[in-house]
Amino acid sequence: MQRIDLNCDMGEAFGNYSMPNDIELMKYITSANIACGFHAGDSEVMQQTVNLAVKHGVAVGAHPGLPDLQGFGRRELKISTHEAYHITLYQIGALHAFVRVAGAKLNHVKPHGALYNMAAKDRNLAKAIVQAIHDFDSELILYALSGSEMIKAAKEIGLRSASEVFADRTYQDDGSLTPRLQPNAIITNEDEAINQVILMTNKQQVISVSKHVVSIVAETLCLHGDGEHALPFAKKIRERLTSEGIIIQSPKI
Amino acid sequence: MQRIDLNCDMGEAFGNYSMPNDIELMKYITSANIACGFHAGDSEVMQQTVNLAVKHGVAVGAHPGLPDLQGFGRRELKISTHEAYHITLYQIGALHAFVRVAGAKLNHVKPHGALYNMAAKDRNLAKAIVQAIHDFDSELILYALSGSEMIKAAKEIGLRSASEVFADRTYQDDGSLTPRLQPNAIITNEDEAINQVILMTNKQQVISVSKHVVSIVAETLCLHGDGEHALPFAKKIRERLTSEGIIIQSPKI
Amino acid sequence: MQRIDLNCDMGEAFGNYSMPNDIELMKYITSANIACGFHAGDSEVMQQTVNLAVKHGVAVGAHPGLPDLQGFGRRELKISTHEAYHITLYQIGALHAFVRVAGAKLNHVKPHGALYNMAAKDRNLAKAIVQAIHDFDSELILYALSGSEMIKAAKEIGLRSASEVFADRTYQDDGSLTPRLQPNAIITNEDEAINQVILMTNKQQVISVSKHVVSIVAETLCLHGDGEHALPFAKKIRERLTSEGIIIQSPKI
Amino acid sequence: MQRIDLNCDMGEAFGNYSMPNDIELMKYITSANIACGFHAGDSEVMQQTVNLAVKHGVAVGAHPGLPDLQGFGRRELKISTHEAYHITLYQIGALHAFVRVAGAKLNHVKPHGALYNMAAKDRNLAKAIVQAIHDFDSELILYALSGSEMIKAAKEIGLRSASEVFADRTYQDDGSLTPRLQPNAIITNEDEAINQVILMTNKQQVISVSKHVVSIVAETLCLHGDGEHALPFAKKIRERLTSEGIIIQSPKI
Repeated sequence: MQRIDLNCDMGEAFGNYSMPNDIELMKYITSANIACGFHAGDSEVMQQTVNLAVKHGVAVGAHPGLPDLQGFGRRELKISTHEAYHITLYQIGALHAFVRVAGAKLNHVKPHGALYNMAAKDRNLAKAIVQAIHDFDSELILYALSGSEMIKAAKEIGLRSASEVFADRTYQDDGSLTPRLQPNAIITNEDEAINQVILMTNKQQVISVSKHVVSIVAETLCLHGDGEHALPFAKKIRERLTSEGIIIQSPKI
Repeated sequence: MQRIDLNCDMGEAFGNYSMPNDIELMKYITSANIACGFHAGDSEVMQQTVNLAVKHGVAVGAHPGLPDLQGFGRRELKISTHEAYHITLYQIGALHAFVRVAGAKLNHVKPHGALYNMAAKDRNLAKAIVQAIHDFDSELILYALSGSEMIKAAKEIGLRSASEVFADRTYQDDGSLTPRLQPNAIITNEDEAINQVILMTNKQQVISVSKHVVSIVAETLCLHGDGEHALPFAKKIRERLTSEGIIIQSPKI
Repeated sequence: MQRIDLNCDMGEAFGNYSMPNDIELMKYITSANIACGFHAGDSEVMQQTVNLAVKHGVAVGAHPGLPDLQGFGRRELKISTHEAYHITLYQIGALHAFVRVAGAKLNHVKPHGALYNMAAKDRNLAKAIVQAIHDFDSELILYALSGSEMIKAAKEIGLRSASEVFADRTYQDDGSLTPRLQPNAIITNEDEAINQVILMTNKQQVISVSKHVVSIVAETLCLHGDGEHALPFAKKIRERLTSEGIIIQSPKI
Repeated sequence: MQRIDLNCDMGEAFGNYSMPNDIELMKYITSANIACGFHAGDSEVMQQTVNLAVKHGVAVGAHPGLPDLQGFGRRELKISTHEAYHITLYQIGALHAFVRVAGAKLNHVKPHGALYNMAAKDRNLAKAIVQAIHDFDSELILYALSGSEMIKAAKEIGLRSASEVFADRTYQDDGSLTPRLQPNAIITNEDEAINQVILMTNKQQVISVSKHVVSIVAETLCLHGDGEHALPFAKKIRERLTSEGIIIQSPKI
């Protein structure tokens, strides 16, 4: 029987700025990647979000980002591998404190935004991040782009990983995502997006933009938390997955 | 046989800004209170300072402060008790990550600057901070002003504490520090300062500004880390304490 | 013929966090107090908001706040008068750059949140802020709480001021606002709130909580920009003021 | 008669962190590039430094950087051209406020660190920065790397510029700096460094690493402000330039 995890970036409110979808979305997901105060989130929001996830039985993960609140961690910042190691470790530690106080267990780490994208391609950055996770707790699970340098680095060091796929992004023949700047990068039709997820989950395959059948590892699906379509889409994909007999479950440690 | 701990605020460099005394000072102290990135310190500095302390066998503590890098955490910020709880927990968690990776154990928590001073007098703030420490790890030791609301709050909740005294500050008849704005608040003569420490350690007494013998609890002495006199004074007081047969030791957990 | 200015805090978005009411609200107000990046706002938002205000013929003011993005500038921070002077001047300068590039003129300065409230009562803080405004441009207008130390400090130094009143706050016999913690501090009934504004504008009087007629200076009315009622209320009060024959106009320099 | 400007980055202290050389260095330079609070500096430091420069008759410039205090503005951050425009304008405005209050005139703008280096090569970034300077005040002078895209962009838009050269960096045959990662990038011998400056100033030429005579525009020399050699070197180069009959003068507007 097939299974997949539904993960979503959570706790990205900050101070006076709220993220209203979090409470409802928590009902549909199985893994929450919780912002740690660098690209979004603050200590108030972190505790609320951790407690909300624990209450819903959702696996709690740290979602470390670049120190760039204004850019929401989406702008590339040329950090050294040492800095990548340190900011990852700092943020995991900060989130872990709230998880520990909530009587729960930190399940995974998913880097955010530009850190995620840079480390997907940069082997040394990937190794530094994976090392920080492993040094903190060797039982943690890395959530990272399927086929990325991060997944490879995790395997090399013996860290568990969950390969992440996207419903609304198209794929190249080599299993990589079509860059966002290309016109066919995004799948806007919801049914197409969901069909892609079903195929990825059931067969570990995806149809590339050039119509080839490509092998892919699909262990966790990234759901977007913002926008007005976030909630209806989360609901819809959950229903489709369930009707297909696919188990929706986090890769718990 | 009498004993006292010598603690010092450490790791208060930030980015390009260094704090050059840290390396030398580590040789003279028994407890390091390491900044956690809010009032000073960053993730690079935190790891270096934790490793330095561990290497020297110095007890490692978290030194959480107010989120005010420009003011170095010395300006009062009216935070709620919830906020005090959250920022304390966040910073303990962040520092703990580096301690854990260093294979060491977090020993204590000493709030910094305005947070320390506000919580010394404000019972609710004190309770919130002490609760955060206790919730994270009930074996941690609170380092706080002798006779303060923080020490009381720790005792109430069953958290170990170390009462902090100062070499260079004068005391009132009620055992509180003479406010800095008063002309006789500071002891500038080094020998006087050291004699006060010897008396406090040996007899748990201090001579107040009105020349009364006042009872005081003296378990840890705060050494200042900045300024050109920091190192010679640390060396000198260590020699005097040793020659008096006083054991210099951290209250290890 | 009576007149009043309608001012509103604007440009309080930040990075990824939006403030959706700004565009619509600009149609109803005559003065925009634009955040300068300390308590809210960033350089992107500042230019957009300045341009929006200029386009609508709305008077542009700087809205300097405390350096506390997480607390939205609403938490008291004990700054020195020097610091108050410097942060006010810095923020006025930053906003002025966008106003200058937009080919417009900076009209006023209204301190934000805790800075506004602290300076309303603290004579020295008020003097420092007013001095910064006057030093930058002695033709600027200070918008500040009617009857406050800021208004007094402005008059002493010869800086123009506009005394601010609130529709939804009750007043004491001495013309001060009823503190928020008291149960009767807020007027929740919209018609009552609007009637208070009409009376304040037409007669420069307000009915205090103890039912006395109290003199007040009402030159600018603070409209709240957030919440779902912000837009309908702005529309409604504008209609009532117009139907009463009151001119809605900023105190332009 | 030949002339050159001696510029130095100034006001890079922050809060509790000082930059002790500033006061002495001000005696030797003719242009001060003053940090504006993004990569270093704060509003206190800005006013002190502006006043110090004015007192010494040193030309005051804004030194805008990337919003990265921890990285001291030295880490590349992928900002859009819009963002480059806005952060430049914001920082110029902030510094201008202190200059205006000091009764002085803002003379120039020199981007800092990674912003300087990125814009030296990236034509669109250069254009955005130059546009921000020009929009704020078309009489300002851009200080930027000799031969860079910034100098070209300034010429295109009709903004005055001063081409910057370095005493301690070697040059390539195309007039560009030898990248820092290469072993021969830095000139460590002080006399060699000074001879290079004399040649650049007198002949507008430099001897490249491959021993070719290369044309270069040398209008302003960058002096480093940090390190123990900063002051003696500033003194020494000033003496040599004077003894060579070279006028040391800022390109005043």
